[in-house]
Amino acid sequence: MAGSEERSSQQPLGECLDAAVKVALEAGKIIREALRIEKRVQTKSSAADLVTETDRLVENLIISTLSEKFPSHRFIGEESVADGEKCFLTDDPTWIIDPIDGTCNFVHGAPVVAVSIGLSVKKELELGVIYSCVEEKLYTGRKGHGAFCNGQKLQASNQTDLSKALILTELGSIRDPVAVKKLFNNMERLLKVPAHGIRIIGSAALDLCHVAAGDVDAFYQFGLHCWDMAAAAVIVREAGGIMMDTTGESLDLMSRRVVAAGTSEMAHKICKELQPVVYERDDSTESTSN
Amino acid sequence: MAGSEERSSQQPLGECLDAAVKVALEAGKIIREALRIEKRVQTKSSAADLVTETDRLVENLIISTLSEKFPSHRFIGEESVADGEKCFLTDDPTWIIDPIDGTCNFVHGAPVVAVSIGLSVKKELELGVIYSCVEEKLYTGRKGHGAFCNGQKLQASNQTDLSKALILTELGSIRDPVAVKKLFNNMERLLKVPAHGIRIIGSAALDLCHVAAGDVDAFYQFGLHCWDMAAAAVIVREAGGIMMDTTGESLDLMSRRVVAAGTSEMAHKICKELQPVVYERDDSTESTSN
Repeated sequence: MAGSEERSSQQPLGECLDAAVKVALEAGKIIREALRIEKRVQTKSSAADLVTETDRLVENLIISTLSEKFPSHRFIGEESVADGEKCFLTDDPTWIIDPIDGTCNFVHGAPVVAVSIGLSVKKELELGVIYSCVEEKLYTGRKGHGAFCNGQKLQASNQTDLSKALILTELGSIRDPVAVKKLFNNMERLLKVPAHGIRIIGSAALDLCHVAAGDVDAFYQFGLHCWDMAAAAVIVREAGGIMMDTTGESLDLMSRRVVAAGTSEMAHKICKELQPVVYERDDSTESTSN
Repeated sequence: MAGSEERSSQQPLGECLDAAVKVALEAGKIIREALRIEKRVQTKSSAADLVTETDRLVENLIISTLSEKFPSHRFIGEESVADGEKCFLTDDPTWIIDPIDGTCNFVHGAPVVAVSIGLSVKKELELGVIYSCVEEKLYTGRKGHGAFCNGQKLQASNQTDLSKALILTELGSIRDPVAVKKLFNNMERLLKVPAHGIRIIGSAALDLCHVAAGDVDAFYQFGLHCWDMAAAAVIVREAGGIMMDTTGESLDLMSRRVVAAGTSEMAHKICKELQPVVYERDDSTESTSN
C-alpha cells in the first residue's frame, strides 16, 4: 500500500512517463515493421492474422515491460479485455493501453496508426503517451506539466464559432443499420450548421492529438473505448483543450462517447447537435462485443 | 506549331516532368512556410486572406515558371478559373494546376495539403506531379514510365472484394442540404455492404495518391474539379489502378466526378452503389461557383 501510495506521488510519475515513452517507441518500431511486411504481402489474405498477432505482441510487450518496472500497477488493454479481462478502474495506478489504434488502417497498410498508453491514479488520468509510429510523432502529456509533440509544446484551437470549425469524427466498426444512420445523421446536422469541414482518419487517439495540436477544432465519437481516449485525454487537456461527455457533462471514460475541443464553448455547441448512439459501457459486467 | 509538336514528343515530356517537380518543390516550401505562419497566428481571423494570398502566389509561381520554359503551353489553374479564365482542353499541351489541394485543411493549419500539377497533350493526360508538402512526399507519374513516391515505385491494391475495402471520399465545400444528404446516403450504402471502412482526409489529390500507393482500395467523389484529379489520374493509372466516371464509363476530366480503385472490378462495384450528385461541369460556359 505504501508502495502504491509512493508511485502515485509526483516523482514516480516522471518515471512512469519515461517508461511509457520508451516502450511506446519500441512498440512503434514493431508496428512499423509489421506494416512494411503487410505492404509486401500484396494478397492481404493473411491481413487478419497479422493484425491479431501484432496487436497481441505489442500489448504483451507493453504490459510485461511496465509490470516489471511497476509490479503493483494494474492494466486495462484492448486485447486483454477481448480475452475476458475485466475493464474497470480502481484507485490503484492503472495503465490503459491500445496497442494499435487505427486497426482497420493497419490491416490495409494505411499509415494512420498509433500506440496509446495512459495512466490513471486514484481514478484520475495522470499521463498519456501516443506514438504515431509511421510519421514518427510522439505525443506526450502529464497533468500539470503540459503536452508536447516531439518536444514541441501543443496548444489547442481557440475557435468558438461552429461555422468555422474543422471537426474530426469516426464511424467505428459497428455496421448495425440503425446506428450507422445515426452516425451519418449527426455528421449531416453538423455540416448543415454549416461546420467548415468534417474529416475521418481512422484513429481516435490521433484525432485527439490533432485537437491538442490545434490542427482541427474538435472531435466527437460514439462507440470508442476507454483505451482510445485515456492517454489522449491528458494530452488534450494539457494543450488547453477540453474533453466532455456528449451530453455536455463531465467525461466518463467508460461511457463509449466523447466530445473534445479547443474551447468549452465549441464542445457544448457540438453536443447540442448530436443525437445519442448508445453502446454498451466498457465497464459493463457483460463481455464487450466490439 | 512545330515547336508544340516537338514538345509533345517523348524527350521533352521528361523535361516537362523535371520542370514540374522542381516548381512543385518550390511551391511546397512556400505552402509549408505559410502553414507555419498560420499556426502562429492563433486567432485565425486572417485565415481566409492568408489562403487566398498563398493560393494565388503559388499558382502564379507555377504558371510563370512553366510558361517561361514552355512558352507555347496553355494553363488551367484553380485560381485563374476563379478569376474568369476559360476551363477547357485543346490539343495543345495544357498544364492543369491546383496550387493548394486541401484548402480547408490549410486554413485550419492541418497538414494534409498538396500541390498538384498535371499535363495534358492532345487531350491525353501525360504526366502528374503531386507534392504533399508537410510530410514531404513527392508523387510523380508519367504515362508508360510508372508512378513513384520519393523514388519508390507505387503499386495500387489488388483487392476486388468490396466488403474488404477501405474507401476514401470527400464531402467537398457544397452545403446544399439535398446534395449533402445524397453524399451521406452514398457513404451509408457503402458502409451497409459492408465496406471495411470509409475515410475523409480533405484532399482529393492525396486521396488518389493513397489509391496509387495501395494504402486504400478506392476513392470516389462528386463535386471535385479537373485540377483535383488531372495529375493524380496519371499517378493512379501508372500504379496499376484505374480511374473511371461514376457511371462506370471512361473518366471525363471535366465531369466533376470520379471513381478510382486498384482494380476495375472494385471500381465497378462502387459505381453500382453510388447515387449521382449533379454538379455543373468544369467546362460549362457558365462561370463556376464552387
